[in-house]
Amino acid sequence: MTKHFHRELENIKKRVLTLGSLVEDRVRSAVKALEEMDGAAAAEIVRLDYEVDEMEVEIEEECLKVLALHQPVAVDLRFIVAVIKINNELERIGDQAVNIAQRVEIIARRPKPPFTFDYAVMSEKAIRMLKMSLDALVNLDVDLAYKVITMDDEVDQIKKDAYDKIKQAIQELPERVGYYINLLLISRHLERLGDHSTNIAEEVIYLVEGEIFRHAQY
Amino acid sequence: MTKHFHRELENIKKRVLTLGSLVEDRVRSAVKALEEMDGAAAAEIVRLDYEVDEMEVEIEEECLKVLALHQPVAVDLRFIVAVIKINNELERIGDQAVNIAQRVEIIARRPKPPFTFDYAVMSEKAIRMLKMSLDALVNLDVDLAYKVITMDDEVDQIKKDAYDKIKQAIQELPERVGYYINLLLISRHLERLGDHSTNIAEEVIYLVEGEIFRHAQY
Repeated sequence: MTKHFHRELENIKKRVLTLGSLVEDRVRSAVKALEEMDGAAAAEIVRLDYEVDEMEVEIEEECLKVLALHQPVAVDLRFIVAVIKINNELERIGDQAVNIAQRVEIIARRPKPPFTFDYAVMSEKAIRMLKMSLDALVNLDVDLAYKVITMDDEVDQIKKDAYDKIKQAIQELPERVGYYINLLLISRHLERLGDHSTNIAEEVIYLVEGEIFRHAQY
Repeated sequence: MTKHFHRELENIKKRVLTLGSLVEDRVRSAVKALEEMDGAAAAEIVRLDYEVDEMEVEIEEECLKVLALHQPVAVDLRFIVAVIKINNELERIGDQAVNIAQRVEIIARRPKPPFTFDYAVMSEKAIRMLKMSLDALVNLDVDLAYKVITMDDEVDQIKKDAYDKIKQAIQELPERVGYYINLLLISRHLERLGDHSTNIAEEVIYLVEGEIFRHAQY
């Protein structure tokens, strides 16, 4: 492959990382809005989602252009296809931030019930998974990618914990079921966030090991 | 492009449709297991998910092979990339069938509460969206693809209805909150099913109209 091709590949990598930072930022903001029960901040996250969407579309266009112009094969081809899919995952991570923000918009207007669930640890883990999966992509670091997959179980465990506690809270305070279901949905959005990062990590492993990892039993 | 290329393209199309039929079948089985509260049938759906996974991997390999061998450009390139993404959506539709089946496995063991929600209409709509989105792909039928997108609102509406009714049921019978939350999650899985079909329809529109539809405000 030509120098020109590799320059374009580097450019695409950079843009994927920029999108990664953007969605990470959106997730952090959504979690902050949740902690502070800030409905206005949540609404702003929803409003700004078009930026993520635009960036995703641009990166995909760039990938298609490189495919058409340079017609890469083997490892380079697989890399571009992986980027197209990872780009898609990042956009969906942005959607999860929006989903969390929409829940916050709803519950921020209502009085806080005596028990709520603290999502600080779960969201920190989910954000770390996202960062690690992108680092794994940039450095083609399979070990790091495997770590992301292991962390997914931890996030799932916290979700189960949230589920049990919130279920209990509903039984004690059934008149607040609406509030609690929204709180419960936030744990699902955080879990989905972890799933998308896991998908990214699996793409990286697939890319490097050249074998089908995605659906293996691990 | 050569005759050989177009034959391979036809072959890929056929395999995507086979995968489409397979996941449709899985969704139907999951909904049937729900209606009949058949835990054993649900377990079988979970067990057989590897077939969907394997088929997805094979189709992606096929697409990569065609990209490398024939180095298509323009419309042909876009088509292959669309197929890679649609293939991915189909696998996730299979996952939703598994998710529903897992919920059924849990609630089938428990006594039925006096109120339950009938998901027949919602699941019929979601399955129709899937079929229509695949027809739209095969015939590159943009009008049909737009219809899928319209139907997504109807599915969302039923989900809201399910939410309201189940919330009410929890308030009346808080000791059955565990059962009801599982029932509620089924409506989310059916909604996600509709989302994946919408994604397929949007890919088709994008493919045909050559412009960015996915994130347009419609």
